[in-house]
Amino acid sequence: VHSTKEELAALQRKPPKLQPLFAALLLHSFAMFAFSLLCAKIIGELLKLNDDPKVSGVYLHLPPASLTSRVINTLYPEKDVDCITDMNMGRLVQGNLSRGFVPPLAGAVLSLLQKHGQFLLDVVSLFISTFVLRGFNSRAARSSKEIFILFYLGEHNIGSSSRSGLGYLTAAYRAQVSFSTLNFSCFSALFVHWLCLQLIVKGSVFLNITVQCNNKSCSLSDIEISRAQTPKPIDQLAAEIGLLPEELEPYGRSKAKVRLSLLDRLHSQPDGKYILVAGITPTPLGEGKSTVTIGLVQAMSAHLKLNSFACLRQPSQGPTFGVKGGAAGGGYAQVIPMEEFNLHLTGDIHAITAANNLVAAAIDARMLHEATQSDKALFNRLVPSVNGVRKFSPIQISRLQGLGIHKTDPASLTPQEVSAFARLDLDPSKITWHRVVDTNDRFLRKITVGQASTEKGQTRETGFDIAVASEIMAILALSDNLGDMRGRLGRMVVGTSRSGKPVTAEDLGVSGAVAVLMKDAIKPTLMQTLEGTPVFVHAGPFANIAHGNSSVLADKLALKLVGQDGFVVTEAGFGADIGMEKFFNIKCRASGLKPNVVVLVATVRALKMHGGGPNVSAGAPLPREYIDENLSLVARGCRSNLRKQIQIAKLFGVPVVVALNAFRTDTPAEIDLVCQIAKECGASDAVSCQHWSQGGRGCLELALAVKEAARQPTNFQFLYNTEMPIVEKIRTIAQKVYGADDIEVSPEVQRKIDYYNHQGYGSLPICMAKTHLSLSHMPDKKGAPTGFVLPIRDIRASVGAGFIYPLVGTMSTMPGLPTRPCFYDIDIDPVTEDIIGLF
Amino acid sequence: VHSTKEELAALQRKPPKLQPLFAALLLHSFAMFAFSLLCAKIIGELLKLNDDPKVSGVYLHLPPASLTSRVINTLYPEKDVDCITDMNMGRLVQGNLSRGFVPPLAGAVLSLLQKHGQFLLDVVSLFISTFVLRGFNSRAARSSKEIFILFYLGEHNIGSSSRSGLGYLTAAYRAQVSFSTLNFSCFSALFVHWLCLQLIVKGSVFLNITVQCNNKSCSLSDIEISRAQTPKPIDQLAAEIGLLPEELEPYGRSKAKVRLSLLDRLHSQPDGKYILVAGITPTPLGEGKSTVTIGLVQAMSAHLKLNSFACLRQPSQGPTFGVKGGAAGGGYAQVIPMEEFNLHLTGDIHAITAANNLVAAAIDARMLHEATQSDKALFNRLVPSVNGVRKFSPIQISRLQGLGIHKTDPASLTPQEVSAFARLDLDPSKITWHRVVDTNDRFLRKITVGQASTEKGQTRETGFDIAVASEIMAILALSDNLGDMRGRLGRMVVGTSRSGKPVTAEDLGVSGAVAVLMKDAIKPTLMQTLEGTPVFVHAGPFANIAHGNSSVLADKLALKLVGQDGFVVTEAGFGADIGMEKFFNIKCRASGLKPNVVVLVATVRALKMHGGGPNVSAGAPLPREYIDENLSLVARGCRSNLRKQIQIAKLFGVPVVVALNAFRTDTPAEIDLVCQIAKECGASDAVSCQHWSQGGRGCLELALAVKEAARQPTNFQFLYNTEMPIVEKIRTIAQKVYGADDIEVSPEVQRKIDYYNHQGYGSLPICMAKTHLSLSHMPDKKGAPTGFVLPIRDIRASVGAGFIYPLVGTMSTMPGLPTRPCFYDIDIDPVTEDIIGLF
Repeated sequence: VHSTKEELAALQRKPPKLQPLFAALLLHSFAMFAFSLLCAKIIGELLKLNDDPKVSGVYLHLPPASLTSRVINTLYPEKDVDCITDMNMGRLVQGNLSRGFVPPLAGAVLSLLQKHGQFLLDVVSLFISTFVLRGFNSRAARSSKEIFILFYLGEHNIGSSSRSGLGYLTAAYRAQVSFSTLNFSCFSALFVHWLCLQLIVKGSVFLNITVQCNNKSCSLSDIEISRAQTPKPIDQLAAEIGLLPEELEPYGRSKAKVRLSLLDRLHSQPDGKYILVAGITPTPLGEGKSTVTIGLVQAMSAHLKLNSFACLRQPSQGPTFGVKGGAAGGGYAQVIPMEEFNLHLTGDIHAITAANNLVAAAIDARMLHEATQSDKALFNRLVPSVNGVRKFSPIQISRLQGLGIHKTDPASLTPQEVSAFARLDLDPSKITWHRVVDTNDRFLRKITVGQASTEKGQTRETGFDIAVASEIMAILALSDNLGDMRGRLGRMVVGTSRSGKPVTAEDLGVSGAVAVLMKDAIKPTLMQTLEGTPVFVHAGPFANIAHGNSSVLADKLALKLVGQDGFVVTEAGFGADIGMEKFFNIKCRASGLKPNVVVLVATVRALKMHGGGPNVSAGAPLPREYIDENLSLVARGCRSNLRKQIQIAKLFGVPVVVALNAFRTDTPAEIDLVCQIAKECGASDAVSCQHWSQGGRGCLELALAVKEAARQPTNFQFLYNTEMPIVEKIRTIAQKVYGADDIEVSPEVQRKIDYYNHQGYGSLPICMAKTHLSLSHMPDKKGAPTGFVLPIRDIRASVGAGFIYPLVGTMSTMPGLPTRPCFYDIDIDPVTEDIIGLF
Repeated sequence: VHSTKEELAALQRKPPKLQPLFAALLLHSFAMFAFSLLCAKIIGELLKLNDDPKVSGVYLHLPPASLTSRVINTLYPEKDVDCITDMNMGRLVQGNLSRGFVPPLAGAVLSLLQKHGQFLLDVVSLFISTFVLRGFNSRAARSSKEIFILFYLGEHNIGSSSRSGLGYLTAAYRAQVSFSTLNFSCFSALFVHWLCLQLIVKGSVFLNITVQCNNKSCSLSDIEISRAQTPKPIDQLAAEIGLLPEELEPYGRSKAKVRLSLLDRLHSQPDGKYILVAGITPTPLGEGKSTVTIGLVQAMSAHLKLNSFACLRQPSQGPTFGVKGGAAGGGYAQVIPMEEFNLHLTGDIHAITAANNLVAAAIDARMLHEATQSDKALFNRLVPSVNGVRKFSPIQISRLQGLGIHKTDPASLTPQEVSAFARLDLDPSKITWHRVVDTNDRFLRKITVGQASTEKGQTRETGFDIAVASEIMAILALSDNLGDMRGRLGRMVVGTSRSGKPVTAEDLGVSGAVAVLMKDAIKPTLMQTLEGTPVFVHAGPFANIAHGNSSVLADKLALKLVGQDGFVVTEAGFGADIGMEKFFNIKCRASGLKPNVVVLVATVRALKMHGGGPNVSAGAPLPREYIDENLSLVARGCRSNLRKQIQIAKLFGVPVVVALNAFRTDTPAEIDLVCQIAKECGASDAVSCQHWSQGGRGCLELALAVKEAARQPTNFQFLYNTEMPIVEKIRTIAQKVYGADDIEVSPEVQRKIDYYNHQGYGSLPICMAKTHLSLSHMPDKKGAPTGFVLPIRDIRASVGAGFIYPLVGTMSTMPGLPTRPCFYDIDIDPVTEDIIGLF
């Protein structure tokens, strides 16, 4: 460096003498001189940039001739975005491209060839050239507010070397490399996260160009769209959103579990904005809440450069093979890879199945053993003498305490106490616990078990539910941490003893083992949208008998990760009258989180149905009313169901943005009408979305509307106080949310309510089990029915999950397979390993 | 470099003049001169080492004063094992310790503090100092035979800096760093692998010191031993055994799936030696085949420095929560983390459960739909008109061709063809397909399904098996690749039509979906032993109704990975008469692999039982005969059961090494007697093993014996030709393996055999379903029974898996829970997340 400066000084002092006789030489010398001056000047600049703490990386966009070895190696390797210094090249020499920096051009070429072959080279023709990354960090970067960064990615043709489209790719790679040069320890997690999302944006918009398909006649299936997009490696995504490597547990290359220790690390980080996506009362075809959720975060992260996270439910595997339809979104608003999302994912539902069925096996085996052994034999087996020592296990002591027996020496129990301890004395006719499978198996709805001779005639009628209907799923969704989950699992009531006492999983001694089976399931799964933005997939409790919302833990993690100015978008199952009401009264009560905005998804189709249009049913062709413009049906639908659902959200003090999920058949007049009436009915804003065909770009207007609505002060409040009597809580929901005149409680239901009060379950919140096809209990009553009395046909308790669920109709907890299930189209290519026909 | 040489030359030419008046200065000068000379000499040496292609890394073990900046930076950074050159330090400055090299000392300190806190610092006191890694690679390294490497790791106290034990750890880290400096492209996979295993050895022996517990009174449980050992990160293990990063799919941090593309990459690599661990007829307590398998690879890899791999079955999760006992090995011969091994692992059994039950749901739903619809209605639903086009799906065309209908236009089918196509016409009384759960749920052994009103009275008696009894598990274990598995899944027969035709999963249209559910399960799972050596865990078919051996694919991958001089040790379920016979006749037939050695595991306890000792049963205390020395019982046991099992192995032309799994109560005389008789009976060798208490060290003698036996030429042959009639194949096994006089085939069984012959299943191999507690069909006949006729009570076919299984007794396919299942002791610590009480 010094010699360079001296050289420069020397050159300046002694300009070369001109000799007219040697013109050619002169010209050459002059060029050399000018060149030397240029190089010296560059080196001087570089020295300044090297020492400038605000500059994190430098890209040398210079005439090739001036990129001399001296110039290049003046640059600190740490600021060498292009990886052209000797030191950085040294790493490459080691041959392991995954370590250290890869020169952007090399990386770009490799990636292009790997992903798209020659094809892309001819297609992409956008270039980015000027690229300087400057990071300003305040001293010690203690407060995230003090940190800001200037990330400048201009667009400019960098010339012939970019004709092939490599320039653009190179720039994207350079952005990633720049990012990796940042010294993480200098920046807060928030800062890194902010930067990362900027990079996701650039990277994903770019990547998306290769698959974006705006042609309406384009008939790619969801899985084809998903497969056309190569997901980022999950550890890259994790680094981008500010996770530490030790907080990630990868499951393959495109999904990973996130450790809960993250919550401790980000404890003091302020939460982001909390957005709920709910819907109007849907047709049986569904109105696209999942696609709106994904389109919205794609718009926010990939286009508006706002940190955002989508939190979704894990779909049951059953329907994947039954009737088409998944929860990965669709079109250009998807979670990818969609086959991972829709199949085993990271095994959470399998863990629930195993845990649920272990409890079931424990129940029946225990009843058999109690039926065939004396008190003493039972006790001796339950508390065996091991090497002459007889000892209660901790879980048995927990049961003893529940019985009011405060002894720890097995020998000291009286015969009555022995009997009370050893006999759960379950009433076979009052077992409420069902087995589960994650398969649409209708023949398991009602079965008789125990018919083998080994079970000695202890037959019993029972049934299987679909796995996501297990109480353990609801517990997973509502648990705040491992200890909380363990406690809830112990409190699960599996049936009633002959003397009328509730028997719990803790009494069976199985709750610890169940918690062990669930130890990984409690960690949310990280995936990505089609545009590379982050998604948590975690828990998917049934929306009819449980609360139908994804997990509290995923939302909490995401809110910390996006930081104060970021957005977490989570989705509630069914219509707003069910999913949203439970989100507020059950999930938010459990989590303590307060929502900022409700996005209410509507479609012209559903609004026409509510306005009096003919029946819509799966499989049948849509009547003409739904294809042709019909403003009066739309208006009537808006003024009934949409208005009512907006009012429900506002009951809770949360602003509403209506998202009209636009279909090809919707006319501009219809769309305008919906938006206009929605605003009249109290929505903060109402916009249409084209995310299905356009991805995040199609949700830009929605994203801006949500951002604006989130600035409003909220006045969130629960609909009822849990200390109100059970009947009053149900009546409040029925009247204020559904618009019922009153509720009707049969003596049998009242008897059960009294029992729950007696057992101390009276202050649990209410989880209504009602059809999602109407605001009332009658699926064919569309719009906003009034003048009805809501009949409470039955009532049950999920004590571990922590709610009482009144049944307003018959709720199917086990779907069936149609004559031609969609598995007929599903197969795998044995050579490419590609999945065929999955949606 | 040149200036250094010049300096040296200058110094040599002009020694400084001595000035007696300035003694102190002189001394200093002289020291300086000597020091300069020394440095110059060092630099000269380094220049040679830098240019020596045979030297891959250099560790500068020099007096600290001579480690001047010039000396250090003379060394090529690529050979800088200690990471002390400026360039390597530059990487550290970037703050990301996971990239580039970490100085061994820094890494060692970090690791120590992370893993063991202060404790270890006081305990470990072994040091390694001299360390030079030299790699000789021939030109282009095309033939693995041309490559060899000298890996020299001497033991020598390096002095004060190592008092804390850091020296040893530092050396281990240095070894890893050295390894990473190798230019992979210069070496064949075999070479890298060989080197890796050397490093495993050093690393794991080292790590093990911290948990090794040889004190017999030490009462650590299996899970405590497992937890005390921190597993290597799975990507590190993968790199050590020569996997490329893209061949690995991590599932968390301690297990990963390995992609089958590895088989293509290593296609031309010669296979290693193939070792089968089988056992004599066991007591109901089990005789430790799994621990011998693991102890043997620990001895081979970690102590004898031979490449080795253990291939194990994945255990069912059911028994984990039932009666204690797992398949992770035990004591100091375990797969770690044992809780991962015993619980969900990578979800393969869950995938099998889902796949199996999807087939079951498809069967019952199809029967319902056929019962309630006309041919035409069925056909219209099965081949619906989509946008006016009616089309068969590929799987439907496959069924049509099976029916002999070679048409592709749905409109062209005759009414008879429509009926034949649309109606599977399954006979409800002849459905052989069972549902499965991976839970010990005895009440599901026999059930009635379809009792809900929605199933319209189509009730049916059926049952659940434990998941590992599913035919899909047997298929997973026998498949050679994805296409092979897909084909087998399609051939699975689920029942018989009313007209007597077999109905397959392909006919149901579900086999593609089943293959999709199994797409990840087909990849073996990589884990490690307690001593850090590699293990594949893959498939675990039931040993009584299926073949009880781990997967063909895992064995094939492992044989390539260990290379020509390496060893793959795989285990067969039950006694050698069952597991080994099926290994040879079914698994080796499917794979085409030829075993080199059989290790036959025996215990003094089981031998005494066979010699006439009293009954041994789980739960009851062992009779005195089994605790006190009793040579005559041992001798009689050896001369009956052990001799017979040795003879069986030799029938197949494979040499046998007897491994006596020694217990504390075994006397030296008993042990000697067993070894002596075993050799008399034809074993190549017979040795005792103490792996349970000593890990790999306790299996050293066995490892040497196996290595020696593997040098013998083998003459492997199948016991029967598959083209023999079914009855003849069964008779051959009964007479030659079990020692029966003959078999007894009832007319009913004969009828079924005729049916199988008619359907073309006659040339499938035989998978006997027989008790493992006796060589005969009578569990209480110990030793080597003779003079009996083996009754064939029933016979079934697993057409997809590819075998016929005759039933010799009643085989339970669903275990039950005892009065006090071991889940009573299992729980999770909500703070540490440690699992308590799992074994």
